[in-house]
Order: sequence, then structure tokens, then C-alpha cells
Amino acid sequence: MKITIAGAGALGSRFGFALQQAGNDVTLVDGWPAHVNTIRQHGLTVTLNDKSFTTQIPVIYPGDVTDNMNTDLIIVFTKSMQLEQMLQNIQPMITSTTKVLCLLNGIGHEDIIEKYVARQNIFIGNTMWTASLVAPGHTKSFGDGSVSLQNIVTGQESAALDLAACLSEAGLNAKYTSNIHYSIYRKACVNGTMNGLCTLLDADMATVGATRTAHKIVTTIVNEFTAVAKQEGIELDTAEIVSHVEACYNPETIGHHYPSMHQDLIKNHRLTEIDYINGAISRKGQRYGIPTPYCDFLTELIHCKEDILLDNKAVTN
Amino acid sequence: MKITIAGAGALGSRFGFALQQAGNDVTLVDGWPAHVNTIRQHGLTVTLNDKSFTTQIPVIYPGDVTDNMNTDLIIVFTKSMQLEQMLQNIQPMITSTTKVLCLLNGIGHEDIIEKYVARQNIFIGNTMWTASLVAPGHTKSFGDGSVSLQNIVTGQESAALDLAACLSEAGLNAKYTSNIHYSIYRKACVNGTMNGLCTLLDADMATVGATRTAHKIVTTIVNEFTAVAKQEGIELDTAEIVSHVEACYNPETIGHHYPSMHQDLIKNHRLTEIDYINGAISRKGQRYGIPTPYCDFLTELIHCKEDILLDNKAVTN
Repeated sequence: MKITIAGAGALGSRFGFALQQAGNDVTLVDGWPAHVNTIRQHGLTVTLNDKSFTTQIPVIYPGDVTDNMNTDLIIVFTKSMQLEQMLQNIQPMITSTTKVLCLLNGIGHEDIIEKYVARQNIFIGNTMWTASLVAPGHTKSFGDGSVSLQNIVTGQESAALDLAACLSEAGLNAKYTSNIHYSIYRKACVNGTMNGLCTLLDADMATVGATRTAHKIVTTIVNEFTAVAKQEGIELDTAEIVSHVEACYNPETIGHHYPSMHQDLIKNHRLTEIDYINGAISRKGQRYGIPTPYCDFLTELIHCKEDILLDNKAVTN
Repeated sequence: MKITIAGAGALGSRFGFALQQAGNDVTLVDGWPAHVNTIRQHGLTVTLNDKSFTTQIPVIYPGDVTDNMNTDLIIVFTKSMQLEQMLQNIQPMITSTTKVLCLLNGIGHEDIIEKYVARQNIFIGNTMWTASLVAPGHTKSFGDGSVSLQNIVTGQESAALDLAACLSEAGLNAKYTSNIHYSIYRKACVNGTMNGLCTLLDADMATVGATRTAHKIVTTIVNEFTAVAKQEGIELDTAEIVSHVEACYNPETIGHHYPSMHQDLIKNHRLTEIDYINGAISRKGQRYGIPTPYCDFLTELIHCKEDILLDNKAVTN
């Protein structure tokens, strides 16, 4: 299969490598010159559980996409705020049969994708694979992961099953699910609490979880997600999700980790994805007439922190 | 007049000194041994606009108050969370004629004081004087200030006027006001925005004010204060108060200052007064059935930060 990875950062590169190894014709699309140049000159290096591999793999800039580059499948792996720009750039390669799979964290990406792609060709999901970029051209992934995915239009179930099979053949442990919106909301509740709180408080998940007010804050935020999801016909089990979030506090497992938003903003002084997590709930809440004050305030506070830490205050999402 | 300063920190010492210089019989009450010992051994040193004075002034521990220590006036100058304990300790000196003046920042201190003092003897106010403790036994004050005060029971206006005159004779520029609750709420709006935000974001007022979301946050918080005050018959002018808060951003005046809460928590790892500012609005809101989510969340976030920064996590307000 001809597969394009649109946004070949840590996880995109890791997926691209796996799919190429499984015999697919994979092309990476990425806008970071140091990364693109390293891959072109020295190949893509992937470290999986401490074993390293280097492979030659085509990589192009988003601006270099032309309409003779047909592709069967595009997997988008940008940061949330870069998704729309990426879709605009790669539009020439999107035909009436090109499938697009989105595994980004956050809520409501399909609303952006369907501006550029027929709804029957859109598939959404989430992944438990993690990866980090060691250096330009070098991604590292540790432990096991999985992918859940689903079509967004009824009737495309078999196409979704085929897609999951394609990923699984590459060792990516993908499954079709009939309830992807539930999974996406459930994961967004983890990101919608731990990401913002650990970033704002500059603390790991175990430390935030040990504070006297963490439970109240997490419960209030999850309730806002629940109220918004309910309006979309998705019934979240609030108590189960709060427990799922609070399992992150365990110092024996992942409690001492800092979520990606902390890495982005506090460590690297980069803009965060808050607008696509809590900010998405705020926008939906406004549309549905549902108050979401904790999501609103958390989004605003993270924007404050971005403005304070980022040198170029003119930059916006 | 026989005057007791209950809580002789930076501002309490500064007031005690001024009132003693004006001929009053002043006693300080304070619980900090290093401070008490220095004043006993070397006198109280007060630096006013770069001129320093040292005076002998009686100082006792709260636990040493006995019922033969009658006093005409007690000015309470504790931290908010120490107010009730101080009142319990000094209860033996409170007679049916002892007046109590409270100039603490924050909302609702009279609810605590009236447990120990007849309402007709309670006077509340606020002050624009500022001071900081240079070292135990040494307070420093810069610039000019003023005091506004009022009786809380109708009929005690002349007593309030006398109190203002007594303070003014000591150079403390005090005025009777017929609208002290408005002034207290107005000042609390400054503390209820700048204190929590600068502390949480670890930034000065100018820096917080320059962020893209500061105006929305400040407006939302002031609206919560306004809704609660309205329930108590106090009509705050929200737009005027938001402008008053935003005047703090000016880097030419006080914009580069960090509010006292930042000093308490971030610099000195001490508990904050958040429960008596935003937390007070949350409690009143709950009582009145008025939602105050921004005050709730800000209070909870500051409590998180306290728990994270303070070594002894068992400590509570």
C-alpha cells in the first residue's frame, strides 16, 4: 500500500518505519529542515526498546507535495495546531479514494479534516504507542502499544477493519472499535486534567495527585467533558474515568512522568495543544450552551503561561 | 489611649511605632520568638523612607495575655489564617468596652471577630500603607499610605470618627467612610486576581497583564466578586474595578512588583491567604447559590501549589 505519514515527528517516524518494514511504500512529509536533511543524508534511525535500526525512507516538505503524488492512505501525525496547515499543503495528493487516518490526541479533529477529505474516507482513532525524538532523524520508542480506530461514516466498517489489519501486519497492534468516540473522550480526560495541571503547577503526576484538591479538580473537569460528550450522544462513565485518570498518580508505574504538555511548554518553551483538549470542550460547551468554566480557565491559564515563557509573544495558535 | 497591636509583623510594628510616637500606651502582641526577643533586647527599629528610628516598646506573646491587661483598642494585624487563634489567645483582655479594628486584606473577617467581640465594638477598614520586615525587630515602610474605616453597627459612627482621628494624629492618614464594604470588596478584587495569578504563573503583575487571556480572566473573577457582593447589598462597578485592577500592570508604577502571596508561597514557601480572598467568595457563593467557578478553581490550584512547595504536607489552614 502507498502510505504517507503527514507529520513525521517521534510517533509519525516510528509508524512510518514499521509500515515500511512490513512492505508498504511509505513517504514521510515533515516541515523541520534538520530532521528532513538528516533522514535524506543518513536515513531514519529508529530505536525500539534499545535496539536501533536505520532505514532509507523518502521524506518531503509539505510545500513540495504535488498532484501526481497519489497515495492510498495518509496517517496524520502533526501537532494539533499544525493539522489544518498540513492538510492544506498536502491537498494535491488527496483524491476521492485516499483514506485519512487521524490518531492525534484531543477532541474534534475530524471537524477540520472533513473540510479537506470526504467523510467516508476519514478514520479516527487513538494510540497507546509513545515515542520521543532523540535528535533530528532519530526516534525512540519504548514498551508496547496499541491502536484503536473506527470509520466516522456508517458503512465503512470493512475499510476500517482493513486499515487495522494493515497496521497490525506492521506490528502496531491495531483494532477496530465500534465506540471510538468514547475512547477518544476517555483519553482526552487524562490529557485534559494531567497535561494542564502538571504544566501549570510544574509537577509530575504523582505530585499533583498527592495534593488535597486534586480529586475535586479532576472530578470537576471530567464532569465538564461528560456533559459535553452527552450532548453528542456519548455517555461517559465519570467515576470510571476519574479512577482511570487517578491511576496515573501511581509512582510505581507512570506517576513520576511529566505529560507531553509539560515537555512542550516548561521544558522546550513551545506552544501547547491546550486549544484542542480543554479548549475544544470550551468551544463545544459554548455551542451547546453547557458551562465549562474549569476547562475555560485552565485553557486561559495555559495561554498566559505560553505568553510568559515564549519569547515571541506575537505567535499564536 | 491604651492600644494593643495583635500581630506585630511588618505593618503591625509600623502602626504600633506611629501610635506610640503620638503619645499612646502601645503594647505589641506577637508569636515569633526571634522578633519578640530582638524587640525586647534592642528595641523596635522602624525605617520610614530611609530614615531609621529605634524605640523601646512592650511586646508579649499571645499566650501571655491575662485578664488584668485591659486595653481601649486592639488593632488586629495577623495573617488572615492566624486571626481566630490570636483572638482566642487575647480574649482575656477584651472587655465590653474594648474596641477592635481590623485592617486585614480579604473578605469576611468580621464574621470571625464577632465570635469574640460585641458587634458594636468592631470596626473594619483597609489600608494603603505597606511595609516589609527587614529582619526580626526591624520593619521598613516606603511611600505614603492611608486608612479607611467604618463601624459595622449603625450608631457607632462617632466612635469610628474618633478612631480615625486617633490614627491620623499618629500620621496614619485615616478617614471615616460610609461605604467600607465597597472599599474592602474593591481591594479584594485586586488581591483576588493579582495575588493568585502572579503566584500560580510565577510572574509579576505587568507580565501577567501582558498575556492575551489576562483581561478575560480578571473580568470573570471580578464578575464573581460582583455577584456575591450584590447579594449583600453592595453594588460593585465591575468595569471601574477591572480598570482599577489593570492599572496594576503599569510597569512605570507597580507593574514589576510581585504581590504578597507570591512572596509568601513562591519565595518563602509559606501558606497563603487564598482562603480569605477567593476562597471567601467561593464559600459565600455556595451559601447564596451563586456559582463562583473561577474563584473555586483558583483557590484549589493555589492549595495544590502550597502542598507541592511546602515540606510538611500535613499542615493546613
